Amino acid sequence: MRHTISVLVENKFGVLARISTLFAARGFNIDSLAVGETENPEVSCMTIIVRGNDKILEQVEKQLNKLIDVIKVIDFKQTKHVERDLALLKVKTDKSNREEVLQIAKTFSAKIIDDSQTSVIIEITDKEENVNSLISMLKPFGLKELSRTGVIAMARG
Amino acid sequence: MRHTISVLVENKFGVLARISTLFAARGFNIDSLAVGETENPEVSCMTIIVRGNDKILEQVEKQLNKLIDVIKVIDFKQTKHVERDLALLKVKTDKSNREEVLQIAKTFSAKIIDDSQTSVIIEITDKEENVNSLISMLKPFGLKELSRTGVIAMARG
Repeated sequence: MRHTISVLVENKFGVLARISTLFAARGFNIDSLAVGETENPEVSCMTIIVRGNDKILEQVEKQLNKLIDVIKVIDFKQTKHVERDLALLKVKTDKSNREEVLQIAKTFSAKIIDDSQTSVIIEITDKEENVNSLISMLKPFGLKELSRTGVIAMARG
Repeated sequence: MRHTISVLVENKFGVLARISTLFAARGFNIDSLAVGETENPEVSCMTIIVRGNDKILEQVEKQLNKLIDVIKVIDFKQTKHVERDLALLKVKTDKSNREEVLQIAKTFSAKIIDDSQTSVIIEITDKEENVNSLISMLKPFGLKELSRTGVIAMARG
């Protein structure tokens, strides 16, 4: 099962290393990881998308809660929430396919943020699955570079 | 001086821990860190915004290059590039200030992605400084939650 977990931690760099190690030790298949600021400058938030057995994940959450620098672990399983992922895609273009690439970007409400004769950089912020769809559709044109932030999440209301 | 560095690494979880430790050991002040996928499923990209002495940073880059799982280190200092940061902001709203909050979001071309009677969730993808400006402008209304990905970067053209 796919889980979205946010871990609020003290904003110290060693913490990231410790949490990464904890997940690695359990052999969890991490799909996405984002580490960023929160409303409190002393607190960072790690958002982790992970697939695995519910029971083992429960144990990992318990272990996370025991770490001294972990403030709170939120599993969004039971919570209505929004998820967003940001990606930059550099796509090869030439005269023959340029219009088609721009049209696909438009369909996904993605933005063109750089434009040269041989490539464009497309910015998309959306749900993970929509970002994946755009990437799949643009791959045949030649994806020169892809940079992605990983998913962040927030409870609704 | 502010540096934007991308580190392309083998997509293994221990790598993140090792690189975090390297920066922590040198006492670097890391403003932002994003870890995400690239066009190659076996390669992850860590984008790091760091402030510090040019010479010491050069040493860190050399050390990074020596790590077995590091494929490439890119310092964008000399390269024209785009940078983007994604943030979700949950802002307290009531009848008296709602219109004003929505107007500020619109000015920044930010999107409203959730709307309840007492709060809205605003999504912004932009340069770091513009995300910072929006956060500053919305703070007085009551920033209930902030989740941010950290900056990602890509060379132009």
